[in-house]
Amino acid sequence: MSSFDTTEHSHRRYNPLTGEWILVSPHRSKRPWLGQQEKPEQEVRPAYDPTCYLCPGNTRVGGIVNPQYTSTFVFDNDFAALQTDAPEGSVNLGGLLRAEAESGLARVICFSPRHDLTLPEMDVKAIRGVVDVWVQQYQEIGARPDINYVQIFENKGSMMGASNPHPHGQIWAQRTVPVDPAKETVQQEAYFKEHGRSLLSDYLEIELKEQTRVVLQNEHFVVLVPYWAVWPFETLLVPRRHVTSIEQLTDAERDAFAGILRQITIRYDNLFEISFPYSAGIHQRPTDGQAHESWHLHMHFLPPLLRSATVRKFMVGYELLANPQRDITPEAAAERLRGLPDVHYKSR
Amino acid sequence: MSSFDTTEHSHRRYNPLTGEWILVSPHRSKRPWLGQQEKPEQEVRPAYDPTCYLCPGNTRVGGIVNPQYTSTFVFDNDFAALQTDAPEGSVNLGGLLRAEAESGLARVICFSPRHDLTLPEMDVKAIRGVVDVWVQQYQEIGARPDINYVQIFENKGSMMGASNPHPHGQIWAQRTVPVDPAKETVQQEAYFKEHGRSLLSDYLEIELKEQTRVVLQNEHFVVLVPYWAVWPFETLLVPRRHVTSIEQLTDAERDAFAGILRQITIRYDNLFEISFPYSAGIHQRPTDGQAHESWHLHMHFLPPLLRSATVRKFMVGYELLANPQRDITPEAAAERLRGLPDVHYKSR
Ligand SMILES: O=P(O)(O)O[C@H]1O[C@H](CO)[C@@H](O)[C@H](O)[C@H]1O
Ligand SMILES: O=P(O)(O)O[C@H]1O[C@H](CO)[C@@H](O)[C@H](O)[C@H]1O
Repeated sequence: MSSFDTTEHSHRRYNPLTGEWILVSPHRSKRPWLGQQEKPEQEVRPAYDPTCYLCPGNTRVGGIVNPQYTSTFVFDNDFAALQTDAPEGSVNLGGLLRAEAESGLARVICFSPRHDLTLPEMDVKAIRGVVDVWVQQYQEIGARPDINYVQIFENKGSMMGASNPHPHGQIWAQRTVPVDPAKETVQQEAYFKEHGRSLLSDYLEIELKEQTRVVLQNEHFVVLVPYWAVWPFETLLVPRRHVTSIEQLTDAERDAFAGILRQITIRYDNLFEISFPYSAGIHQRPTDGQAHESWHLHMHFLPPLLRSATVRKFMVGYELLANPQRDITPEAAAERLRGLPDVHYKSR
Repeated sequence: MSSFDTTEHSHRRYNPLTGEWILVSPHRSKRPWLGQQEKPEQEVRPAYDPTCYLCPGNTRVGGIVNPQYTSTFVFDNDFAALQTDAPEGSVNLGGLLRAEAESGLARVICFSPRHDLTLPEMDVKAIRGVVDVWVQQYQEIGARPDINYVQIFENKGSMMGASNPHPHGQIWAQRTVPVDPAKETVQQEAYFKEHGRSLLSDYLEIELKEQTRVVLQNEHFVVLVPYWAVWPFETLLVPRRHVTSIEQLTDAERDAFAGILRQITIRYDNLFEISFPYSAGIHQRPTDGQAHESWHLHMHFLPPLLRSATVRKFMVGYELLANPQRDITPEAAAERLRGLPDVHYKSR
């Protein structure tokens, strides 16, 4: 019998940020595919679309008119999943039917007035503008006494549920700490208590030695495919310095953040030469007034495509009912991403 | 200020089977949708498709020829995500990069020789045949000393990642207990220890009194939209009697199981008058040799469609990075499902 080889044999990997395991089946990507074919995003979009409710000067549902914004534009989501004025209350039947009122807010961040520009097509200065808005929003919303967690994220592409193609991100912020950041809080605290260093500082140190999963790095940030990645080309963007939130980033670090955001999203677009769909989001310290010194700021990129622009990974039966599972190894994914050109395919 | 009303206000609900919370935003289903439109399944399929690798008599990848089966047909997945002969081994770098070999097996169960029949279009006797195969497979695979958990599931429809439209389910079985059943084990054990009754027995009792979330019932089974449902029309199928696995079902209960499976899948197809996509799966006692008397057999149906045959719920940014979230209340979903005809739309 051959010896255990993670490039060949089924195995589980541990996610130290959540404390949960994933299943890796490296040999499975060869199976035939008669299933769903995705429709790639429409490639050519106008710089301004009169029917888009996110473009400057256009009217949104409810009659509000967008300003003639020239960089970023933030507004309260017209169909917010969370409301600040939700009345208090709860339900409890036998400890089995339990509900609790939840309050919060939801905002939309247009990245650019241009209907046709996504992050990888914007210049570093414009992306730095987005970073600054994230910092400002995190500070402003996080300062509210009724908000204890601020989730900044982007759904890019209709495949990832974006309900409007105009490049934008979102913020959902709320009183309680949601499930995933709560798990990461527990895990990072336990690690910090035991080792006196942040989990991601130590993890980064190992990965920079190993190099096999590192995709990109600059002076202040590293992008890698985490050892426990679930989505085919999932990456983790981590600042080298242990900071608990984006508000602690220095001016130079904010520039470096913008720069590496541009670089990773260019590689993503270059992978299948399409506007690459993903969900991405920033995980950082809850804003509940505690220091959370164990928290180490990071950003997750969760892209669904697996084999090509038209064949995605489905997180379905086994994954929804039993355990997250992936088909190609994180190392193979990192190697492919690393090998891609750093110039966007559209401008070559 | 109005008082807390779960039909109007954002709230969290608790899932006692996993110990985790979900976010409910009842007012949000009114938002405009310029996002992805799904392509409904091809409606008319031939009874036999010469190019299908699951039809009787056809050749599969690798050259194996399917028998001329006349009811169900079980075979080892040609691209199994788990292998019985995987060598032992593990990786551990600083407690942060951890992997462990995982062994197991994967099988495919064709429900019928007919390429064009899904569960709701089969008669109760044929569905009973599927139930019997599930029991037999659970027993046979569960008896292996190297298998401690058997996951039976179905991905129905290309929207849920089915890689072949021929009606079939799958079994993935493995040495370790996967994340979700492991959570359900912990939660059910804790409840049983405290109350001396299974969690789902007590839950069923409350729901049968409340009635608002009950969709269907027969002598031995109940189908309801659980109080903590995540997917828009998610349901839970529960035997009235506390049994830990399908092998404990009596002959009459197996018939009732087949009957209610037919009824719930007919309602699903009738909802938008299409072949309704979902992932479904059976959760039951791990086969690790312990009695697991707290386990209460049940089946989850996780369907993605939200508003129509072409607009689904996306579990993306916020849901992947923070917390599961739903837009319509479980009560509203149950009411709609309850109100549907019990005769399949194609045979009306
Ligand atoms: O095994 P299939 O049908 O080829 O594949 C389908 O089900 C599997 C188990 O849920 C998933 O891992 C795949 O992503 C999905 O496409
Ligand atoms: O807010 P949007 O863009 O309309 O909606 C999108 O993102 C939300 C947050 O991840 C999801 O709940 C929706 O399913 C998705 O379509």
